[in-house]
Amino acid sequence: MTTDPADTVAAPAPAPTPPRRAPAGAAVLREDVTEAIREAVVEELAAVGFSRMSIEGIARRAGVGKTAVYRRWKSKLHLVLDLVGAFAEDGLPVPATGSLYGDVRALLEVMSHVLRHPVASAVIPDLLVEAARNPEIAEAVRGALLDGQHRMAQGIVGDAVARGELPEGIGPEHALDLLIGPLYWRQAVVRDAVTPAHLDTLAHQVVAGLKAGPGPA
Amino acid sequence: MTTDPADTVAAPAPAPTPPRRAPAGAAVLREDVTEAIREAVVEELAAVGFSRMSIEGIARRAGVGKTAVYRRWKSKLHLVLDLVGAFAEDGLPVPATGSLYGDVRALLEVMSHVLRHPVASAVIPDLLVEAARNPEIAEAVRGALLDGQHRMAQGIVGDAVARGELPEGIGPEHALDLLIGPLYWRQAVVRDAVTPAHLDTLAHQVVAGLKAGPGPA
Repeated sequence: MTTDPADTVAAPAPAPTPPRRAPAGAAVLREDVTEAIREAVVEELAAVGFSRMSIEGIARRAGVGKTAVYRRWKSKLHLVLDLVGAFAEDGLPVPATGSLYGDVRALLEVMSHVLRHPVASAVIPDLLVEAARNPEIAEAVRGALLDGQHRMAQGIVGDAVARGELPEGIGPEHALDLLIGPLYWRQAVVRDAVTPAHLDTLAHQVVAGLKAGPGPA
Repeated sequence: MTTDPADTVAAPAPAPTPPRRAPAGAAVLREDVTEAIREAVVEELAAVGFSRMSIEGIARRAGVGKTAVYRRWKSKLHLVLDLVGAFAEDGLPVPATGSLYGDVRALLEVMSHVLRHPVASAVIPDLLVEAARNPEIAEAVRGALLDGQHRMAQGIVGDAVARGELPEGIGPEHALDLLIGPLYWRQAVVRDAVTPAHLDTLAHQVVAGLKAGPGPA
């Protein structure tokens, strides 16, 4: 891999005991360039969509060379997965309102914002198409989209079990199906707007579903 | 529009009082050619996917000329929407088991088969990408995919209200979100297999959610 002076800075002198540092004298990728590329990707996605987006178009919009992009990500798919992963992590704090209904309602609020976000609405359908064609991509999409959501479902259900609001034995996958599925269906598939009243009803129904437990053995 | 003798048959002599008939002497599209094209589309979709599928490839596989395809559908999108619409209608009889749990469980069974079908898994993600880019396509996809499902949700909920199993006031859209959303999420987004035990639990939870009604006013 070659380095490009315009895209790299000299590594800073080592601090006394940094936890992780670049080798002294090594080229370090400039964070401002990385950030400009990320922003360009969001704009490109909104403008042309995933399938017509090119590394060249991203580089042009970011005002950098194509190598600056390839130095960081090996393909546009990897770039977008990285972006979606970061976005999914940022957007999904585990709610802790003190009640199951409150937590579910807060989760639905956050998720409905996430699903309305241009990155999500422009790129998730495309990623699912790629995932349908290629098991390796399917795995990467699962990791980027679902790991954070799993942790969140586990947090909400675990807290409710600890408070005595839910029976034990509900797997996080089951919980996530109920927590996310109906909202995803409405916003990403049917593409209907959701109102606060709709989210209230949905939270009420999801809580009732979760309280029903895993069902007769 | 020109007619092609190999693709048309003379209209039959009018029967005494047919409810709808072709004008005497008009060219009628041959049903066996239409069927061959439909089959070719299913095979093409499985082989190359929606975005790389071409009218030319479909015609070649069906052993017909491109005009035979264009005489029936104006684009590959219209062709696929027609196919999906027919498929969604066929696959979705309204269950009538005599109980809400039975109806919901039967619906989940049918839907999980539909979502595993190659046409559905190959083409729905692509249609949703098209829908995200183009409101006209979004409307057509809604019609093709959702009209039958709405009728079905209305049937199940209406029967349960009549039996006294459900309160009144649950809109079919809300019901559909709960009935389809969690399964769609698992099979089409997460792409995890579902087991009969999983469907049992999900039916149990969906029934509890529906019974909770629209929630506090």
